[in-house]
Formats: sequence, C-alpha cells, structure tokens
Amino acid sequence: MDISAAPLYVKTLTQGRHTVTAPRQGLCEITGDILTWIESQKVTTGLLTLYLRHTSASLLIQENYDLDVLRDLEDFFAAQAPEDTTLYRHIAEGADDMPAHIKGALMQTHLAIPVCDGDLLLGRYQGIFLFEHRQTPRAREIVLHIEGQ
Amino acid sequence: MDISAAPLYVKTLTQGRHTVTAPRQGLCEITGDILTWIESQKVTTGLLTLYLRHTSASLLIQENYDLDVLRDLEDFFAAQAPEDTTLYRHIAEGADDMPAHIKGALMQTHLAIPVCDGDLLLGRYQGIFLFEHRQTPRAREIVLHIEGQ
Amino acid sequence: MDISAAPLYVKTLTQGRHTVTAPRQGLCEITGDILTWIESQKVTTGLLTLYLRHTSASLLIQENYDLDVLRDLEDFFAAQAPEDTTLYRHIAEGADDMPAHIKGALMQTHLAIPVCDGDLLLGRYQGIFLFEHRQTPRAREIVLHIEGQ
Repeated sequence: MDISAAPLYVKTLTQGRHTVTAPRQGLCEITGDILTWIESQKVTTGLLTLYLRHTSASLLIQENYDLDVLRDLEDFFAAQAPEDTTLYRHIAEGADDMPAHIKGALMQTHLAIPVCDGDLLLGRYQGIFLFEHRQTPRAREIVLHIEGQ
Repeated sequence: MDISAAPLYVKTLTQGRHTVTAPRQGLCEITGDILTWIESQKVTTGLLTLYLRHTSASLLIQENYDLDVLRDLEDFFAAQAPEDTTLYRHIAEGADDMPAHIKGALMQTHLAIPVCDGDLLLGRYQGIFLFEHRQTPRAREIVLHIEGQ
Repeated sequence: MDISAAPLYVKTLTQGRHTVTAPRQGLCEITGDILTWIESQKVTTGLLTLYLRHTSASLLIQENYDLDVLRDLEDFFAAQAPEDTTLYRHIAEGADDMPAHIKGALMQTHLAIPVCDGDLLLGRYQGIFLFEHRQTPRAREIVLHIEGQ
C-alpha cells in the first residue's frame, strides 16, 4: 500500500457535453477528445466521470495499442448477441437493435477515471472508447463531469 | 466538443438509502423512486451515485420505452447462466443462486449519473433498473450518494 | 424511500495507490487492503472510487463467503473466452492474452463504494476483488480516490 497524497479541498465541479458519431459500428477511440477537455479544465487533482446518454452504445476502457484487440472484441460481442431477428421480440428497429441493447447491458454506460497532476491516470496502454452497437452510427452525447481542485 | 459550464464550488454531499423488493425475478424500473429522492435534495448541479449492497442482483441503465427489450434482456441473461445445478459447485441455496452471482458479475453494482438543473441527465429513453436475479425476490438496499451544489 | 442524512460540506479529496500481485490467475480478495487505507483517511462520510490501470484484469464486487462462488465465476468466464489461439487475431502474447481483454470488457475497470461513519457500505457478504485474467500474474496498480468529510 503506497502512501496517500495529503488531503485537498474539493474546489470545483464542471460539466461539459461531447457529441461524437462513430465512423462505423464498433470501437471508436475518444481518448484524445477527452484529454483536450481535461486540459481546458485546470483541475490538477480530481475525478472525471463520463456518462453516455444512450442504451444502444457503450463506454469502454480497453487496450489502444494493438488494433487486433479491438477487432477481436467486436467479433466476441457480435457472437454473443447475433443480429438475427428470430432470436428476439424487439425487432421493429432492425436486426441490430436488440443485440445493441444486450451489448449495452454487458458493458458500461459510465466510467470514472482519476486525474492527478492535471492528467488522466489511464494506464500505459489504456484508451477510452465509444462502442457503437448500431450498424448505422448516430450522434452520441457523452456528459463529462469533473470534480477536484 | 461543447463548451463546458462555468466551474462551481462543490457544496454539499448527502447520502440516503432506498429499499426495494422487485415484484418478480427480472428487471424492475426504479427511475421514479430515484427522481423523487433527487427532487428532495435541492442539488442543481452534481453527480448521483447508486450502490447496491447485494451480489445476486444488479443495477442497470436500459431502455424503458419498449417492454420487449426488458423481456429479451431477461432471456439473454437466463441463457448465459442457466439455472441448472449440474453446472455449478455453489448450489446449496438453489439452482438460481450461482446464476444470480454470474449475472451480478456481468452487470453493475454501482451507477453514476450526472445531475444538471436539478434533473438527472438520463437520455430520452433511459431508465434505471434493479435487476433481481433470484427467483424469490428479497428486499434490496440501494445507497444513494449525491455531491454537488 | 428512507430519510436522507443532512447535507454535509465536501471537505477533502485524497488519492492513493495500491499495487497488488495476485497469487494466481483468478479472483483475489483485496477488501482488507482497501479497508486499511480507508481507516487511515479519517473520512466519515464520502465516496471511494477504485480505478485499475490495466486492461487484462478487472475489479469486481462479489460474495466473499462461499469460496465455491469464486471458483464457479472463474469457470464461467474461462468458458466465455477460451484460451485458444485459433479463436483470435491478437495472439502474440499468448493464448491467455485476448481472453484477458474480453473478460476485462465484460467486467469493471472502476468501482465506487459509499463511505458512512468511516466504514465502506459493503453489503454483509460483499468483498472487493482483483480478477487477474493472465496466467502469469503481474503487479497491478489500483488508484484509490476518496472524497468526503
């Protein structure tokens, strides 16, 4: 167990919105967008929370080094919830709709990442991704919420 | 990237408890209960965290518009972890016990949702659900924690 | 809906780091380590966030009473993502590498747990676990972030 930093007063809370449309169904890295926002916030120590306002896409922290990881993850989740209307009741919006909700339930709607010295404490190979589960990507709104000082 | 709100001072932190018993195994919407609590808190900008003190149920944000989505989700997770004692070691509490833990591991024990202008920033079709994984629902305690001003 | 506590001022924010190496692939309980850190923080009411800086391991809250639950969970996730190189593109680091990323996507990179009266509000049988997904465990860094008063 490492020594903890000295206590700080929680000074500020800021919320922003980020809208992103993935180029295609699957994993779309948004780490750069989030880092740009963090740099504009002047928070040196705090906690960033990301919240996705949709149920047919997910937020995910995963390896951003070898792109094969992303393709394998997409294949895994595609096999978990096949786009086959005979498997589901909820099919009015197309074969990819219910699988999108299932993938949404298996992954995250929100993420929290600590900030230290003004930087996100992501691991060396960690990236932040929007996982678009629909075949025709749509604009997705992410709320950014930071508290700290 | 949208413009962020001006920084605010974090003024208050409040915790509450909400106990709910689902009417049956499966998804039980609790959005209304949570909104009632939020309205009593007088927080205009902040972050709500929900924490479930159980390992055989889950918290989930999902679509609350078409109930078929909920039935399809229940079927999906039932197929993932069949209630069949020959599949597991942990069977003393019944065939539904270990599947309940597996579903608990696949979904969330906690959720965080930003609050803005006194409202939860849920998306248009997002609802908050307790997913009861046991066949005989029991009282489930959820801790509500809000920080903001 | 229970009565909420009176609002408190958010006074302090502290971050720490905890490095742990699991004894083997699978679930490794870290509740004691986290409680030790919490006790040193003098926060009576607040929120603890844990963040894992790796993509081939997970954080999980699960039952810590019957160890059979842990073995059944390990078997379930092993079957979800078999360690078989013919199934994946990303195989350079061994047969256990891509399954580790898949398990990472199915479970959590961060957890949040409320603190009340100086104690974590874990349920009676809830424990905090590091789930090591690689066959050869490595040192895993967890960021601890607490806000409260």
